[in-house]
Amino acid sequence: MKIDAAGLQVLSREECLELLASTPIGRIVYTDRALPAVQPVNFHLDGTSIVIRTGTGSKLAAAAGNAIVAFEADEIDPRARTGWSVTAVGHARAVSDPEEIARLSELPLTPWAPGGREHFIVVSTEQVSGRRIRR
Amino acid sequence: MKIDAAGLQVLSREECLELLASTPIGRIVYTDRALPAVQPVNFHLDGTSIVIRTGTGSKLAAAAGNAIVAFEADEIDPRARTGWSVTAVGHARAVSDPEEIARLSELPLTPWAPGGREHFIVVSTEQVSGRRIRR
Repeated sequence: MKIDAAGLQVLSREECLELLASTPIGRIVYTDRALPAVQPVNFHLDGTSIVIRTGTGSKLAAAAGNAIVAFEADEIDPRARTGWSVTAVGHARAVSDPEEIARLSELPLTPWAPGGREHFIVVSTEQVSGRRIRR
Repeated sequence: MKIDAAGLQVLSREECLELLASTPIGRIVYTDRALPAVQPVNFHLDGTSIVIRTGTGSKLAAAAGNAIVAFEADEIDPRARTGWSVTAVGHARAVSDPEEIARLSELPLTPWAPGGREHFIVVSTEQVSGRRIRR
């Protein structure tokens, strides 16, 4: 078991992707007008890509399309002080191909918020890192 | 009740700070070697400032000290599809004054991970925004 300088267990890429596949909520981290921005989203792991569904005119769609973004998911139990966190860094891509949109629309990825959400952002998991906290 | 373009309830600054005070876990968003980075941390809201305790030599301490960062906390129930999210953007400051370190050491902010965590980062909540999802 690999332990980092802070005493946390280092997770492998495979473990990170399994954990990402196990949770419906993550947070996309991007830059909005030169300032750091973060937004929780529901997502689906499609192979090794993170798929997010958003509104066409959303700030997220405008700011995160075709940029390098980070994506984070975690499950932390504050009482037990245990949990895990996974971060992926990669290119975000706004999907424009109608065939790809049709395919992504079939994923189990229901938009939560009201309003049209017919825009897909795909984040490639180029760099993945994860940690597990144990007592 | 104010509703945004995505159909989410817009929270006031006061509501956002109350929610930040109600949870022990958030995520600090910063830039690490020109790439977006995000790390979950336990924190304490000290007045209107976010206080994080970390290792002196940590990547977080090096990268987030004296930069503009974002800080996000949320509580989302994936089954009920309800929850809230709050994001603060402001200057992060590495604390070096011994008196301030002594005061911050008294806060109810226990480091979770093993290893020394005698370094404090204070993030001012200059811009705060928050949303609530209701079905």
